[in-house]
Parts: sequence; structure tokens; C-alpha cells
Amino acid sequence: MSIVKKLSFDANCEEKEKYTAQNGDEFYGDNGHTVEMDMQSKYSKPKEAHWLLRRIYILSWIRNYSREQAFADLIAGITLGLTIIPQSIAYAALAGLSSEYGLYSAFIGSIIYVFFGTIPQVSIGPTSLMAILTLQYCADKPVQIVIVLAFLAGLVELAMGVFQLGFIVSFIPSPVTKAFTSGTAVIVVLAQIKNLLGIRLKGIPSFGAFFSNIRPGDAVLGISCICVLLLLRLLSQVKFKQDNPLSQRLKKVLWYISISRNALVVFFTGLMVFIWTKKSSMEAVPFILSSKVSSAMPSIKLPPFAFEYGNRTYVFTDILHELGSGIVVVPIVAVLANVAIAKAFVKDGNLDASQEMLTLGLCNLAGSFFSAMPTCGAFTRSAVSQASGVRTPMAGIYTGLIVLSALSILTPYFQYIPKASLSAVLIAAVVFMIDLAPVKELWQTNKKDFFSWVGSFIICLVCGVELGLLFGIVVSMVFILLRLGNPKIEVSLKQQEAIYYVHIVPHSDIYYTGVDTLRTELRSACRLYRNDFPVVLDCSRFMQFDATFIEMLCAVAKELGENNVLLILQNISLKVQQMLPAVENIRFCNEDTQLCSHLQEKETAPVEAKV
Amino acid sequence: MSIVKKLSFDANCEEKEKYTAQNGDEFYGDNGHTVEMDMQSKYSKPKEAHWLLRRIYILSWIRNYSREQAFADLIAGITLGLTIIPQSIAYAALAGLSSEYGLYSAFIGSIIYVFFGTIPQVSIGPTSLMAILTLQYCADKPVQIVIVLAFLAGLVELAMGVFQLGFIVSFIPSPVTKAFTSGTAVIVVLAQIKNLLGIRLKGIPSFGAFFSNIRPGDAVLGISCICVLLLLRLLSQVKFKQDNPLSQRLKKVLWYISISRNALVVFFTGLMVFIWTKKSSMEAVPFILSSKVSSAMPSIKLPPFAFEYGNRTYVFTDILHELGSGIVVVPIVAVLANVAIAKAFVKDGNLDASQEMLTLGLCNLAGSFFSAMPTCGAFTRSAVSQASGVRTPMAGIYTGLIVLSALSILTPYFQYIPKASLSAVLIAAVVFMIDLAPVKELWQTNKKDFFSWVGSFIICLVCGVELGLLFGIVVSMVFILLRLGNPKIEVSLKQQEAIYYVHIVPHSDIYYTGVDTLRTELRSACRLYRNDFPVVLDCSRFMQFDATFIEMLCAVAKELGENNVLLILQNISLKVQQMLPAVENIRFCNEDTQLCSHLQEKETAPVEAKV
Repeated sequence: MSIVKKLSFDANCEEKEKYTAQNGDEFYGDNGHTVEMDMQSKYSKPKEAHWLLRRIYILSWIRNYSREQAFADLIAGITLGLTIIPQSIAYAALAGLSSEYGLYSAFIGSIIYVFFGTIPQVSIGPTSLMAILTLQYCADKPVQIVIVLAFLAGLVELAMGVFQLGFIVSFIPSPVTKAFTSGTAVIVVLAQIKNLLGIRLKGIPSFGAFFSNIRPGDAVLGISCICVLLLLRLLSQVKFKQDNPLSQRLKKVLWYISISRNALVVFFTGLMVFIWTKKSSMEAVPFILSSKVSSAMPSIKLPPFAFEYGNRTYVFTDILHELGSGIVVVPIVAVLANVAIAKAFVKDGNLDASQEMLTLGLCNLAGSFFSAMPTCGAFTRSAVSQASGVRTPMAGIYTGLIVLSALSILTPYFQYIPKASLSAVLIAAVVFMIDLAPVKELWQTNKKDFFSWVGSFIICLVCGVELGLLFGIVVSMVFILLRLGNPKIEVSLKQQEAIYYVHIVPHSDIYYTGVDTLRTELRSACRLYRNDFPVVLDCSRFMQFDATFIEMLCAVAKELGENNVLLILQNISLKVQQMLPAVENIRFCNEDTQLCSHLQEKETAPVEAKV
Repeated sequence: MSIVKKLSFDANCEEKEKYTAQNGDEFYGDNGHTVEMDMQSKYSKPKEAHWLLRRIYILSWIRNYSREQAFADLIAGITLGLTIIPQSIAYAALAGLSSEYGLYSAFIGSIIYVFFGTIPQVSIGPTSLMAILTLQYCADKPVQIVIVLAFLAGLVELAMGVFQLGFIVSFIPSPVTKAFTSGTAVIVVLAQIKNLLGIRLKGIPSFGAFFSNIRPGDAVLGISCICVLLLLRLLSQVKFKQDNPLSQRLKKVLWYISISRNALVVFFTGLMVFIWTKKSSMEAVPFILSSKVSSAMPSIKLPPFAFEYGNRTYVFTDILHELGSGIVVVPIVAVLANVAIAKAFVKDGNLDASQEMLTLGLCNLAGSFFSAMPTCGAFTRSAVSQASGVRTPMAGIYTGLIVLSALSILTPYFQYIPKASLSAVLIAAVVFMIDLAPVKELWQTNKKDFFSWVGSFIICLVCGVELGLLFGIVVSMVFILLRLGNPKIEVSLKQQEAIYYVHIVPHSDIYYTGVDTLRTELRSACRLYRNDFPVVLDCSRFMQFDATFIEMLCAVAKELGENNVLLILQNISLKVQQMLPAVENIRFCNEDTQLCSHLQEKETAPVEAKV
């Protein structure tokens, strides 16, 4: 019994159907045709929305948006808003900009992602990576150049999305994603520990300096916040003995408290400080507080493609010249980081990376119209979203509104939030992303994957996350190429109808990197058997011939010809066969009978005389 | 009838033999055992020399060294000597050194290669590539640093040879080698045309400046030399109507004249200038002549690992600090260029790249004891050797002796050689290496190879040969990875004993880059058939599972399990099977009967209810 129906899927997973019978056999079932017709009507292609419409990803989930999801998103969005504001201020400062540029980015990134984003956890806004890159390309240059950089980076990211370059996700193997996740989490924890304990030293402090600079007030607050957060986290897992309406209701309340824990901690510590300052003065508070937010609502205007600064007039080409390689490097790093983060949080590999690129591009493009700095997804915030039980990208609306209110009505209140409590939120969210379990598992199953994990992890910690990611990608590629360079080839002496022949069976497709190995095998086999027998090369695994392969095959066939040995290519597909030039000494065969006739053809030659 | 004998070759091509019968069948031939025993004695492993002894490659060919070969090598060696001397002077100047350092390198390179080298055409000595790199890392630094660079580069190259890194040749596909060859040849021709026509302008001259600066004397001499060389080249192809001893003798004489053409042209033009200067004065000669050679015999001494220069004392660590990344970059570029040249001249792919690396390392190491600059194989000289009919690396002895004599007794005579005649020799040798034929052929057979060729060729011309080579290697790797990222997968609905199942057959091994494609295929297939049938994945092409693959497989199995669909892995090898963790929803099967039992196991589940 054989195939009834064969399907081939094109790149967009739209099914084209064609009916063939496998191995050329016709299907003569008792009611075969009926089955076919049934299937044709039953398994027909579902109607899909227009490509452009599908890009507005919110349309795919908004119709099923439930009240429960809305509540979870509200909590997560508010928590994220309380996290993103101090982060935006800090990263804007890191990039050498004043705080409002960071907040504009956070606002636009959050709002745009609601409509186009696919991963609920991802939060587009200022990140340390983007801040450092912006500083690198725009240090001591007018802020207008930063905004044009955001525009150009957005354009490149959008183009990557439109041209469906999302396949690059498949170049990030799973151990590298895991190493990147754990490595970034460790970095965040290490960076936040200083804020948690109120240490004001810059750079990496010495052991002694570290302990002598701990501020007791901040340390107590920070550590108690972490304890509270971890306890509240356990609340949602509380189990009741009885299962009645009351216990169910209680369970729900506990769950609400549990996922609101980050917002609650920030709110109550802020309230505490507010009361404290009202009772005594701002200086009396023993905690380091957040920076002041400057109040300036975002306004829409064209990115400054030409402007005057100091005594100089910058036109567009001047700006391009100032930015140099940044125009390409910033979007590529942003896309790689964004995709790696998305891959770390996505469920069961369902990542539409092209859509993520497109969204990131739109965030930056729109941002540049609101004077924003370049943005991408942030690992820390994604972890906070995750810990706050986010359900859909809708959370971004609340985050955006919080940011907007921070820029207007809430401006005077944000300075009361202690830095230690924010650090506690970040640490408590990120610490669960550190997962060292894969190490042992990878060591047992695959040493190369183990090496990728360890290498990426260490380089993430030592040289930075973007280099760690790059290292992992490159090393994994090199491992593949090395494996392809050493294909497994089985060589055996076989017999058919009393004629011996050397049978060479490559166990995989041969690419140019494996050509040398195959050549060596062919030669060794001939040398070992002193050219006594014809050589049969099984080509059933070959999908394609490249020029290097064809050249080798012709050269070997010629060498064999000089020794009066025939080269028979077995099971070669017609498509591949047509790529070969005509070589006198090569024969093709598919079935055993054909092989036999070729072998006998050779037998007429005076082989015996040679032995 | 089945296998009698199966052989597996290890990486060093030494045959380990094991006797197995294929498919578990025993071999019960009438005299099967006798055949086996016969074969064992007949095809036993030949005795091989000790590994270290085999490294001295001269031992493998010197015993069969014939008189004819000796004569050809003598002619080629002398011609090469006449070419290498002006080249060494020019490249030493390019590196910012005085001429003797170039000549020392040429001497040592030529001599060492005789004993260890494998490709007769390759000539180790100063090259433009090494000169430019030396300049880059050692500009305005004491010459001792250049010598230590030669030592360190040699050490790295030697290590690459000892650790058998020769497999990197297989990373240079044949179209890239061809593009590199043609590109380098075009560059040499373009560079030599100025010398040929006596143009003294630096850089790339304008069209007008080019023609107005042609010196008639040099141009006439240069072009006549080229004409003479091309005519003499044809001499060896002259055919005689009669085949008697006289015509055979005449043919041999013509052949000798033909292969000596380069030496003859240089000798007679030099003689002409010599007579001219004796009759009138040096200034009266209308040709640009070669530079004066400073007379200084090489002496052996330790490389200067510590020395004083100006007011400063350099110790070894200072030198390392001055050289920086050059310690790695110089040997890697040298090895890549050397290997690419060797690959361009080697016959039928028989290249032992590790041996070439080892030899290059020894040349540089030994060179550093004779105060030489870093060296590698030169493309131009290889072409001249080829055109002069070189037969074995023995030619290097004569080249070395000519260089040595240039440094001593011949010193006063080398200045009489006109630059135009040397350029004519280089152009006439290199012009036949330009081969644009592959372009059309590659376009027809393989567009990717075509693109590799064109890209490498253009980048060789525009950005330099080392970047062209690198581009070709990287682009070819990316093409492989893209191909692996889009594996061909056949999906069909099959029927066995009235039970339908979805059969998914990947046509090649799946690496992590192809995991996303396979996941999409699996999901699409399930969605299309609305989870009505069990899914059978044919694993016969899988050689290994990486972590990304295993993760995907477990996730998909879990998804299928939620829809009550069984995932059956067919024809999976035991080794691969052991890599998989235990997943409830996965079954394994090899033969049709096993498949059947699994399918029936599923049939008991209420599938009909779902339809």
C-alpha cells in the first residue's frame, strides 16, 4: 500500500497540493478515488488574511481578549511602567543624553509593540546595550544625530523584517540562547547588587571597598524587599485542603497579590519615603532615591535630517558621515539581541522573527518622530513582565500611560522611589532566569553543545552579552562545517553475480568541505584493492553537486580510467546527473540489473591479467 | 549476495580492517572463507615510513629523480633566481627594509622548500602580501622586531602543520581558488604594465598621465621581450612531419630553448645593457635598470629576542607588545595565501596542506636565524616556475645558489638587468593564469558557485587578494548554512493495513539551522490533517542529534500528545535513539511490522470520534 497524496509546503507554510502515487505505482484501492476526493474537500486550505493585515498582530488575538488577561496585563503593565522609568533615565544618562529622551523611547516602544508585537514579555525601550552603542557612535555629538540614528536603525530593521530575514533565528542554537539568558541574568544581578546595598562606587570595587561602602539603610531595605518579593511569589502556590467557593476566592486574591508583588513593593517603599520626607526632610531619608524626572511631553515632528549646531550646519550626508558604520551595526546588534530575548521567552519555538524585526523597526522609526533614542527589547524588563504574569502585549498600553504620566502629572512623585527597592524587583525577577541545569545534560548528550554553552556563557560575562551571543553563533556554525568536512563514508567490497566491486556509500550529503575526505576515501579504496575492481559510488544521499564536487569526481574518474577501472554512480537523481559534464569513464545506474550490466561490461576488459 | 568485508578508514587513511557481513547476514559462499583469507593476505596494509621521516618529503621522490627532471629543474631554478632577486629587493623596500633582508628570505625559503615542500611550482620568499603586513606591524620599528615576527610567525605556522590543521584547505571551494588565481594574475599584470612601459608614476595614474609618461625605450624593449617570450613558448609545440632521430633531437633542442626562454630573455637583455654601458656610459642606456644589490653574505645567529635600539632596551615581552595581533594575523594570512597558491598549482587535488604549513613554518623559523623577513609562497614566481617547466622542488637549490651568488660574486652585474624585461617575464608567465572560462560554466551549473567566483574575483581586484580569498571562504560557508537551514522534507499521507498515517521524510540530515523548518513542516502537516492521523518521522538520514533538535522533538511530541496524536520515529539508529530523553508520546520502530503494531496501538484510541 502506498501514498495517496503528497504535499509540499512552501516557505510561508501555505499548502499546495498535488496528487502523485509513490514509486510510480498507481493507487488501486477498493475505494481509493473516493478517499482522495473526500480528503481533498476535507483538508482544503483555510482562508488566510492578507499579508499586510496579518502584520498587525493585535488583530489575531484581540477578539479573544478576556477579562482575566486584561487584569493580568494591567498589573504587569503598571509594574513594568514603574521599572521602565528609572531604567530609561539611567540608560539615557549612560548614552550621554538627558532623561526625557529615554522616557520618549520607553513610551513609543511600549505603545507600538501592543499593535505589532508577538511576545507578551518583550518590552521595547532603552537598554544598556543600545545606550552603550549610542554613546560609541554619537559621543560628544549633537542629540539630533542620535535621533537620526534611531530613524536609520529603524529603517534597516524594518527592511530586515520586510525581506523576511527572520530565518536568522534558526542560526541561534538552543544552548546559545540558554547561555545568553543565564549570562545576561548573572550580569544584571551583579550590576544591581551595588544599588541594592547602596554602594556608590563606580566600576568593579575591591572586596574591602565593597563591604566598607555598604550603606546600612539601603542594604536593610533592599534585602527585606527581596525577602518580601520571594515570599509573595510563593503565595500563588499556596494549596488549600478544602475546595469550596471561599477557598477558590481566597486563592484568586492570593494570586492577584502575588503577581502584583513588584508594583506593591515599589509603591509601598515609595509611600514610606514620601511620608518620611513629609515628617522630617528629604535629607533625613537613609536611602538613595531615584533621579528627578524632567517634565516635558513628547511632541511629534520630523526627525532632524538637517539642523544647525554651534556654528556648523549639518546636512543629511554630514549626519551619515558622522554615524558611519553605526547605521548598520546598531540595527544588527539590536535585532540579534531582540531575537535572542524573544527566543528565550517564547513558548515552544513559535517565534515569528521577521514580525519582531518589523515591530522593532516601527518602534525606532516612530520613536525618531518623537525625539527618541535607539531602542530594542530589554532582558530585565522581560523578566519582570514574566514575573508579573503578563498575558498579552496589551500590557504595553499601561506601561506607556505610566511613562506618559511620569512625564506630566506624576513628575514630582517618582523621586521618592528608593533605588534599593527597584533593584530588589529586578534581582528577584531575573534570578530565576539563571539556569545552570543544561550544563550537565549537554555534557552527557553532546560535547559540542556543551562547549557552545560554556563558551557563550563565559564570554557573555567577560566581554559583554552581544559578543557572547556572536561567539555562540559563530562557534556553532564552525562545528557544523567541521562535521560536514568529515562525512561518514562506508567502504566495502561487494559481490554481485560473481563479480566483485568496491562499494562506497557516503552516509550524508557531501558539500565542498567534505570533497577532500571523499576523494581520499575513493583513492584509498582503489589503492587498497590495487585497482582490481570497479568502484560503485552510492549517490542516493546527494541533493546537489557544487563545482568543487564535480571537479573532484571528474578528476577521480580520469585517474581510475588510467588504471582501467570503471566509476559507477549508483542511484543518482536525474537533476544531479544533468549537472555532470560528460566523462568517458563514468556510468550511471539505478537498479541492480543496471549495475550488473555495467559490471559485466567491465568484466570483458582483461582484469584477470592484472591480478 | 552481500558484503564480505567492510573497511573503515581513520583520519590518517590508515586502514583498520574488520570483518562483518552486511545486514547481519552470514556469508555462506561455496568458498567464501577462502576468498576472505585470500583477500586478507593480498590486500594487507603496506608498510609506511615513520611519521617524522615522511615529513622530510624529499625522501619520497629523490630516489626516482631523473636526469631529465634535473635539467628542467636547473633551467627553472635559474629563471626563478633571476626573478626572485629583483622581487626580493622590491618587497624588502616595500616593507621598509634594505635589500639584503629580502634576499636572505629568498635564499632560506628556496633551500628549505627543497627538503620539505611538496609542490614543485611553489617558491617561498618575500611577497607583496607579507611585505605589506610587515610594514603594517613593524613600520618605524627596529629591524630586529621584523626578524622576531618571522620567528613567531614560523612557530605558529609550524604548530598549524604539526596539529594537522591542513583540513582548512577543504574550506576553500574550487571556484574561490580559481577566482583568487585569476584575480591575482590580473593584479600582477596591471602592476607590471607600468614597469614594462617605463612609467615612473606612483599609484594609479590618470589616462592622460599614463600615456604621456610612457618611455619609448622601455616600452619597445618590454613589448619586444613579450613577443619573443610568446614566440619561444610556441616552439615546444612545433610538430615535425617526419619522425626520425634528427627531428626528435631537434624537437628536444626546441623544447630546451622554449623552457629556458625566461632566463634567456633576462640574460640577453642584461648582456645588451652591459655592452651598451661599456661602449658609452650608464646614463646613455634608455632603459630603467634594476636596483643595486648590496653585498652581504647571510650569517647564522639567534633571532634578537632582546636587543638595544636607540636609547631603549627591548626585552621579549616588549617585542610581543609591539607586534600585537601581528603574531596571529601574519601566519594566518601567510598560510591561507600559501595554501590557495598551492591549491591553484597542485595536480588533481593531491595537496598535503599540513605538510605545506609545516614547511612554511620551517622556512620562517630558519629564516629568522638568518635575519630574514617573514615569507610565504608567491603567486608570480609559481607562475614563472610553471612556465619554465619545473619538475620537482629541487629547482629551489639553483634558485638559492643564484640568490647567494647575487649576494657575493654576481653583486656588480645584477644592476644591468632592465626592469622592462623582468616585467615582460612576469606578465608572459602570469597572463596564462587568467581564466575566465569558469564563469559561463558555473552560471549554467550552480548559481551559488558563480556568485562565489564573481564576488571573490571583484574583491580580489578592488580590496586585495587576501580579502577576496576571505570573502570567498565566508560566502561559501554562508551558502552551505543557508542550504542546511532549508532542508528538503517530503510530507505524504500513507496507508498501511487500512490505517492512514502522515509520513514525514527529510531528504537530508537535519542540523540546528534546519530545526525550525522541520518544526514548521511537522506542525503544518498536523494542522492540515486536523490531528486525525499518527505522525511517522523517517529518521534514517539523521547522523546525530544536537540539543536544539532534541528540544524541538520533545516539544512537538508534547503538542501532538495534547491532541492525542502519536509521534513515531522510524529507522532511528540506536546511537541517536540513546540521545533522546524519555518522552511518553514517542515510539520507535524499524520495520514495517513494528510500525504496524504502533499504528494499531493508536487505532484503539477513539480517533473516529474526532473525525
